[in-house]
Amino acid sequence: MVNSVCVLGAGSTKYGKLNQSIIEIALDASKDAIDSAGITPKDLQAGYISNVFGVTDKQVHMAPVIMSNLGIPNVPGLTIESACGSGSIMFREAFANIAAGFYDCLLAVGVEKITHTGTIQSTTLFSYCSDFFYEGGNGASFPGLFASIARAYMDSHKATEEDLAYVAVKNHENGMLNPKAHLRKKITVEDVLNSPVVASPLKVFDCCPFSDGASAVILCTEEFAKKVGNKYVKVIGSGRGASPAAVQARDDITTIPSTVAAANQAYKMAGISPKDVDFAEVHDCFTIAEVIDIEDLGFFAKGTGSSAARDGLTSRNGQIPINPSGGLKSKGHPIGATGIGQVVEVFEQLTGSAGDRTIKNAEIGLTHNFGATGASAAVHIFQKA
Amino acid sequence: MVNSVCVLGAGSTKYGKLNQSIIEIALDASKDAIDSAGITPKDLQAGYISNVFGVTDKQVHMAPVIMSNLGIPNVPGLTIESACGSGSIMFREAFANIAAGFYDCLLAVGVEKITHTGTIQSTTLFSYCSDFFYEGGNGASFPGLFASIARAYMDSHKATEEDLAYVAVKNHENGMLNPKAHLRKKITVEDVLNSPVVASPLKVFDCCPFSDGASAVILCTEEFAKKVGNKYVKVIGSGRGASPAAVQARDDITTIPSTVAAANQAYKMAGISPKDVDFAEVHDCFTIAEVIDIEDLGFFAKGTGSSAARDGLTSRNGQIPINPSGGLKSKGHPIGATGIGQVVEVFEQLTGSAGDRTIKNAEIGLTHNFGATGASAAVHIFQKA
Repeated sequence: MVNSVCVLGAGSTKYGKLNQSIIEIALDASKDAIDSAGITPKDLQAGYISNVFGVTDKQVHMAPVIMSNLGIPNVPGLTIESACGSGSIMFREAFANIAAGFYDCLLAVGVEKITHTGTIQSTTLFSYCSDFFYEGGNGASFPGLFASIARAYMDSHKATEEDLAYVAVKNHENGMLNPKAHLRKKITVEDVLNSPVVASPLKVFDCCPFSDGASAVILCTEEFAKKVGNKYVKVIGSGRGASPAAVQARDDITTIPSTVAAANQAYKMAGISPKDVDFAEVHDCFTIAEVIDIEDLGFFAKGTGSSAARDGLTSRNGQIPINPSGGLKSKGHPIGATGIGQVVEVFEQLTGSAGDRTIKNAEIGLTHNFGATGASAAVHIFQKA
Repeated sequence: MVNSVCVLGAGSTKYGKLNQSIIEIALDASKDAIDSAGITPKDLQAGYISNVFGVTDKQVHMAPVIMSNLGIPNVPGLTIESACGSGSIMFREAFANIAAGFYDCLLAVGVEKITHTGTIQSTTLFSYCSDFFYEGGNGASFPGLFASIARAYMDSHKATEEDLAYVAVKNHENGMLNPKAHLRKKITVEDVLNSPVVASPLKVFDCCPFSDGASAVILCTEEFAKKVGNKYVKVIGSGRGASPAAVQARDDITTIPSTVAAANQAYKMAGISPKDVDFAEVHDCFTIAEVIDIEDLGFFAKGTGSSAARDGLTSRNGQIPINPSGGLKSKGHPIGATGIGQVVEVFEQLTGSAGDRTIKNAEIGLTHNFGATGASAAVHIFQKA
């Protein structure tokens, strides 16, 4: 690596049902990030976009359109897709390009617009992110796949539906404090347990919503960041991993190999261990996912992650705060944007702009995001500058 | 750059109307490339996929599915999209990752399956690659946009429809010698001039076909290539560029700024000038595109590219052979695969496996590929090892 890499600015639209075009959504977040960084579009040397289903809003090849609308039509860009992990996998590529010395400063923006297709079509489209031959094509959509994972976990580790409900309650509590969150609604364990079954044991309140939205960050060399003079955050660890595409091909479905591999790489690069992390944004598309994530990331021993939310260990003032933003569950899950949205939260936490969500004395934050049932994953570790 | 980067193997499916699934198509090319390189899947450390419309075959998030089917489910991957330029923009990222030392050996595979959607739906989908707000959404599909470009070029530089026809005739002649080509059919200038008008002055034989297909290459460090001991080709130059997304926003529509920028970067990195290039694969989605490309790449002065094919200068035995593979026009244009397909041709040319298409004594080959009307572009330069 030639350069140390920093996040110099961050911006997000509100997550939820948005009526603008996908380009307008991406531009809103991008302009916020540029302003937040204290730079102008002319400082950008590349644009990295993450998106999955732009085709439903009649726009792929988004980078030239976004860059043209920012007034920098001659700055090259591209789109990276890795299902629900697109944002983090894109962030990893953008990181690599700065680290390698190809660029000094770039825009990384994730965007999705999906709610206009409706819930049934969205579920169908999302199933194209699975191994469609073995999964989606046989009716195994993501709620069903994660229900299988939840059932296996509950059987192996004596966890309960109530344990999972506490994850949702905690993330909604955090999301209440996030003005950009999709579902800003306080819920109780009883609300979760009494909500309609989607795929047993998962109920409506165990599932994240379908969301539109965009998040953007400015990535640059530390030299560039110092020259600008604004607050920034260092990227000290980066890792990515893969798992067998279809859940059926995995030896143990209560752990996600891609997370473990990505985390090990990121910890090694950062020279830290899980206990050094002050808070994390993790991929909680379903409550069971958060439980598995916090074990795979090394925060909790296998089989003990399920009681973490119930025992308050993952609350904002707990042992290791998880998803202070509200997570996918409450903040929302615009799939192309989610991975970058996590970085936005870390940036805000570590630069003193997270308001009432602020984790006290936090120095090191981690983001973890995966695609599909974890077929792809990336982990990044950030440090206060 | 930590490493010098090589292409160690290459493979392609036939381009045309294919009946397999998009994953099967991608796997066929990938396995050919792996065999050609003299390695096994276990040597691969990453998978770079390029694709645009996998959603129409119900599979996005393809990397995990491809890697799992290759028997290496824990090798990470991602998909890169940049419209018709996807393959080259992806190649650029794969190149950057090897150059920076992140990987020693990886698979780069481009794939598209589109013919099953039919010509009208394909045209509609492709229009989502334009700046849809200004272009596709107002009925300006790509034949119409390139017709405007052709008309402007003919007006400015006194070129004729016959000049353009010679480009098609030359590329069909080359494609006749390519067993993987989609349209293996000899055509005459009269055939082109008498073919039905698509968007005046462009006629059917001025347009490339809609194709399915996949192409794959193995990228690695030179150290890795030497250890394997098979023939390889060095990547000595890489550049990418951007233009205003909508054609209407460009000062002069008879040149493509992204090509010029990408070529300048690539020539500079390679330390060569256009006259050092022995042959090139360029983006001839329409005949007029090849004319503009060979000027923007510096092979011909502005306004003189239009007579190059007529005068035999771009034939296989001409001054600078262009599209010995048959180009998009005859070989076909599976949009996610095209950029990698160009690299396959260069690899075959420079390693002595191009058969009757072989350019004599070629040492340096160039690939040029763009997205949409050139909103994004990449240029790579290769040297015989």
